[in-house]
Amino acid sequence: MDMYSFGASSRELVGVTVLDTVGLVISGADELLKEKLGTRFSALGVISSRTGAAGQIVAVDEAIKNTGAELVTIQLPRDTKGWGGHGNFIVIGSDDVSQVRRGVEIALELTKKNAGEVYINDAGHLEFAFSASASSALNSMFDIPEGRAFGFMAGSPAAIGLLMADKALKSAGITVTKYMSPDCGTSHSNEIIIAFTGQTDAVRTAVLEARKVGLELLRAMGPEPKGPSEPFL
Amino acid sequence: MDMYSFGASSRELVGVTVLDTVGLVISGADELLKEKLGTRFSALGVISSRTGAAGQIVAVDEAIKNTGAELVTIQLPRDTKGWGGHGNFIVIGSDDVSQVRRGVEIALELTKKNAGEVYINDAGHLEFAFSASASSALNSMFDIPEGRAFGFMAGSPAAIGLLMADKALKSAGITVTKYMSPDCGTSHSNEIIIAFTGQTDAVRTAVLEARKVGLELLRAMGPEPKGPSEPFL
Amino acid sequence: MDMYSFGASSRELVGVTVLDTVGLVISGADELLKEKLGTRFSALGVISSRTGAAGQIVAVDEAIKNTGAELVTIQLPRDTKGWGGHGNFIVIGSDDVSQVRRGVEIALELTKKNAGEVYINDAGHLEFAFSASASSALNSMFDIPEGRAFGFMAGSPAAIGLLMADKALKSAGITVTKYMSPDCGTSHSNEIIIAFTGQTDAVRTAVLEARKVGLELLRAMGPEPKGPSEPFL
Repeated sequence: MDMYSFGASSRELVGVTVLDTVGLVISGADELLKEKLGTRFSALGVISSRTGAAGQIVAVDEAIKNTGAELVTIQLPRDTKGWGGHGNFIVIGSDDVSQVRRGVEIALELTKKNAGEVYINDAGHLEFAFSASASSALNSMFDIPEGRAFGFMAGSPAAIGLLMADKALKSAGITVTKYMSPDCGTSHSNEIIIAFTGQTDAVRTAVLEARKVGLELLRAMGPEPKGPSEPFL
Repeated sequence: MDMYSFGASSRELVGVTVLDTVGLVISGADELLKEKLGTRFSALGVISSRTGAAGQIVAVDEAIKNTGAELVTIQLPRDTKGWGGHGNFIVIGSDDVSQVRRGVEIALELTKKNAGEVYINDAGHLEFAFSASASSALNSMFDIPEGRAFGFMAGSPAAIGLLMADKALKSAGITVTKYMSPDCGTSHSNEIIIAFTGQTDAVRTAVLEARKVGLELLRAMGPEPKGPSEPFL
Repeated sequence: MDMYSFGASSRELVGVTVLDTVGLVISGADELLKEKLGTRFSALGVISSRTGAAGQIVAVDEAIKNTGAELVTIQLPRDTKGWGGHGNFIVIGSDDVSQVRRGVEIALELTKKNAGEVYINDAGHLEFAFSASASSALNSMFDIPEGRAFGFMAGSPAAIGLLMADKALKSAGITVTKYMSPDCGTSHSNEIIIAFTGQTDAVRTAVLEARKVGLELLRAMGPEPKGPSEPFL
């Protein structure tokens, strides 16, 4: 268990987990912050990481499904601690602070699990994500219709991502909802990214096709790629 | 003294200091550069760093106050040597090369001092800045009225910055002039940043409130945060 | 020879070389990727690196000249593995897969050679490039007329680049075709970059003038700058 909790005197910190991810709650947010974040909610849950985005967004998507908290914003800083990808800054809101707290707890737990599909070596990185049923976070960020399956792949340096995307797209029965490149949709990250939907099995198969070729290429560029958690797809 | 000076044969280099900051003068700038920088001045002073922004901007603000050199440009590259924030590229100008040289000298000295309010550990970073009386650099970059107090806080990963901003804003008597996030106002850095003004004591208090919670959160994510100089606020 | 080749079962990987550069071919690209990349070609050659841009663009420019493959896209992610510059993502296309494969082979070989003009130390980096005769890649990226000489310099932190640019511009007989800064033309990198044309000798002289002052400044900021290959200009 690598989560960390403060004592009762610091009620805002819910915990920290892999990929330099922190989860916080703000029970009565300042009016200016609410305005800048574009929300009416005073109880906010905040997740952000130095590394990774899709795994955390899926984690927050599940948190929303399970608590009734609502999505406020998803932002993708250019980070990854010197690698070529994104970190994340995600806010959820509710009228009920216990709801956002529970949401952040769920998001932290799932962030740790989802980090099993982040692969990094000295040359680059890969990220994969999957959900059988999208909620509002995946809809907002990747245009996946709610209730439908979600698949995601990112590869860096970007050439790797392009070949991975080509393999995924040649897998049957998926529809791409988002294509992101260094010049378009990313925060100038060194990645090609696609998000897609379709029948659940087809989506999962396409993610695995992309992973197979991505790992093969990243291994050709450097040492065995590793991540902070166990692969699960 | 970690400043470095070339011999008389290299009159452009004024010195280098912490945070990979270099200070230079150009005595008769090429016309194209003047046009690209948007200035009529031929004598230019240049400060830039791999890490940090507010401390260097305050340093240049003081340099302007004390020399009569004028601000030409402030730009915020996405840098920090693998961390989630900004570096800086700042140019001042004058008709008198000795004036910009003296300005760069002052800016380098104060950059070293101001770096005491940069805190870094493996998980993220914090930056704080304060001025009792803003000049044109702080006005240009952060919309602080000249002569008024200036407070600044940045926290990374961005969730930390949001909670710090909430604490600062709940401190009495400050007015925010700038809010910056990964998607807005930053160069996609992994930070929430606010700049604010108000009565001098209120501004200083708000900076210290943000620093208290920022250090608490960054300590929860990793080793004791450190900076290249001594804290002074 | 630090190139790597897969067996015949993985025909897409052409090789890897310095600066975390990978070269790939896609023989029958998916229609969606063709649309996103803005090309009608099904045979694509892809080069991308974590570090560097001008050397790789010159390498691809030569590959185009020597094979008849055409430029599809050049994109500049913000990367350099924790340093303040760009990586690259470059795609060429043809109706003939053997043509793009040969193009990628040439580009990888020249990328290794051109990397001799990348200089890095702990404080920052420099990059220089030169071509006696530009083709379509240099024309597309840097507005160099085809058939004319091309010179390039980048310096980071940006102050160094500005002084290098001033020295290059004071060298006789060059015309700047592109000026890039943290706020303009870059992906928020911590660099000043100029590209220029003119008589071949004048262009080469200007590159060498910029290199002389750049190395002098970078040495003043840290240890002796090094690169992955042998300097050749």
